[in-house]
Amino acid sequence: MNEFSLIDTYFKSRNKSKSSQIKLGIGDDAAIVSCPPGHELVVATDTLVADVHFPSTIDPVYIGYKALAVNLSDLAAMGAQPSWALLNLTLSEFDDAWLNGFSDGLFELLDEFELNLAGGDTCRGPLNIGVTAAGWIPANQALTRSGAQIGDVMFVSGYLGDAAMGLRIYRNDVASELSAEDTDYLLSRLHRPTPRVALGQYLCGLATACIDISDGLMADAGHICEQSNVGLEVSIDDLPLSIAFKSASKDLDDLDLALTGGDDYELCFTCSEEQVSLVESISREIDLPLAKVGTVTERTGVRFIHAGGKILETEKTGYKHFG
Amino acid sequence: MNEFSLIDTYFKSRNKSKSSQIKLGIGDDAAIVSCPPGHELVVATDTLVADVHFPSTIDPVYIGYKALAVNLSDLAAMGAQPSWALLNLTLSEFDDAWLNGFSDGLFELLDEFELNLAGGDTCRGPLNIGVTAAGWIPANQALTRSGAQIGDVMFVSGYLGDAAMGLRIYRNDVASELSAEDTDYLLSRLHRPTPRVALGQYLCGLATACIDISDGLMADAGHICEQSNVGLEVSIDDLPLSIAFKSASKDLDDLDLALTGGDDYELCFTCSEEQVSLVESISREIDLPLAKVGTVTERTGVRFIHAGGKILETEKTGYKHFG
Repeated sequence: MNEFSLIDTYFKSRNKSKSSQIKLGIGDDAAIVSCPPGHELVVATDTLVADVHFPSTIDPVYIGYKALAVNLSDLAAMGAQPSWALLNLTLSEFDDAWLNGFSDGLFELLDEFELNLAGGDTCRGPLNIGVTAAGWIPANQALTRSGAQIGDVMFVSGYLGDAAMGLRIYRNDVASELSAEDTDYLLSRLHRPTPRVALGQYLCGLATACIDISDGLMADAGHICEQSNVGLEVSIDDLPLSIAFKSASKDLDDLDLALTGGDDYELCFTCSEEQVSLVESISREIDLPLAKVGTVTERTGVRFIHAGGKILETEKTGYKHFG
Repeated sequence: MNEFSLIDTYFKSRNKSKSSQIKLGIGDDAAIVSCPPGHELVVATDTLVADVHFPSTIDPVYIGYKALAVNLSDLAAMGAQPSWALLNLTLSEFDDAWLNGFSDGLFELLDEFELNLAGGDTCRGPLNIGVTAAGWIPANQALTRSGAQIGDVMFVSGYLGDAAMGLRIYRNDVASELSAEDTDYLLSRLHRPTPRVALGQYLCGLATACIDISDGLMADAGHICEQSNVGLEVSIDDLPLSIAFKSASKDLDDLDLALTGGDDYELCFTCSEEQVSLVESISREIDLPLAKVGTVTERTGVRFIHAGGKILETEKTGYKHFG
């Protein structure tokens, strides 16, 4: 099988979404996309490497799903409506079972968000997956990391640390008395993160700054601070931890996982105190917990505060390549 | 050095082009791009893998240059005006000299075309370079592979086989009597291909089909035939071969290199007979040879014809991954 029939079999033929914006998709020198008037293009790209971003032995369904999910999470953090994606796939060998699983995972998420796979490139080499996702946002409405204002409150969606705990479970590094239900839940948070696309769109015109938590809250809240030139005080007791996380963490230092574990793909955002009730109504509307965990301060840096007022001392930050 | 300072040092800080279309570039969750009214987005992506697309020992300047050039060549084949690019860079280790060279090559071409590096991703793993390039074209003006009409003539820009001959030289597989000038020329066609961006734009509204020759004329002209549902008869004696190529090929079967060698990144296009004089004036205007080499036929498939009318018999086609 050459790369043209590979692309046809596993990708082009599975493209369900016939977006009217895709004037020309897979199969020419480039894709052609029409732009909705009054909108800006929002585009994100992420690479997944075997044994860095995922264990190389993992079910390829999860790889295909996650490669797109992490990019949709970036679009969500900007408030954009996803529209199409590109795939750069480097494979060490032709493997029908692997390609079937990978494209199952990829297209599950493409189809859920009605995205068109508009193009890409496939070649041979050590396994490497690059996905570029693009979407649209009304002009000048995008959320960024740079708008947090002193006195704003900070929210976090969902729960922190579940994906990192899921990785511990995957590595058989957690006490065995965890229920099957908790185990499945934590593994699914690792393998199938949920890009918070609807939340991001609700936050447009409401949040002052937003980021997705891919490297852990400590590192990613730090990016909001740096780019907004403010600080953050985060209440440790208010951090949202799932029941499954608490069950799994009883013998471990769970706080580090929740703050620096990464891979949660929740949104961290700031807004004015006046918007808090609106945020709470959005939480009910989309059935997603949104926890108020901190406040924006003039003093720069992120400080995590225990209930008694003691500041958390930690050396850890998020995952760093070339660290 | 972590990946954030790496991105700042070698990429973000070197971004000269302050395109007004880039509302938000490197440094947030995603880039934001404004769309020129009445235009469509044209987007191409290609991956380069060490020891597949380039020898791993090659000067990294060439890798950075070529990773972008091959994508600009795809945009050229659509007739688009390039505007911005994304970089997915997977590196096995931090290497200042390599990164300096790579970014020198990349930014030489970004700056030449006034492109903005709008975003990307950097991580650790086996060397793998994905570049996505995007540009704009007035709505409904893009060139595609599918419009060739029976009776059209076919042109090829520049010269064929120079890059493949350059690779032979790089591998010390060519007779040594070649002049330094010819050697330099052929190596530069391998390492620094010229995306035919100006030509592509001139061809809008004139050419009926267009493709860039990345896998060799035989394979790429074949794509025009398949997607236009026509055939091509190509005159072997009219194929444009450079003086340097002819000097280097005297003891070798030069024709295969010219037809299947790949990596030339010239444009192959069709147009009606009435447009030939216009094509010739474009050739003078942009100082680029445009050779009339064939005609579009009703009988499908690509046939290469010797002067006496004999049809070339060959088993070879273009380079195929997973072939």
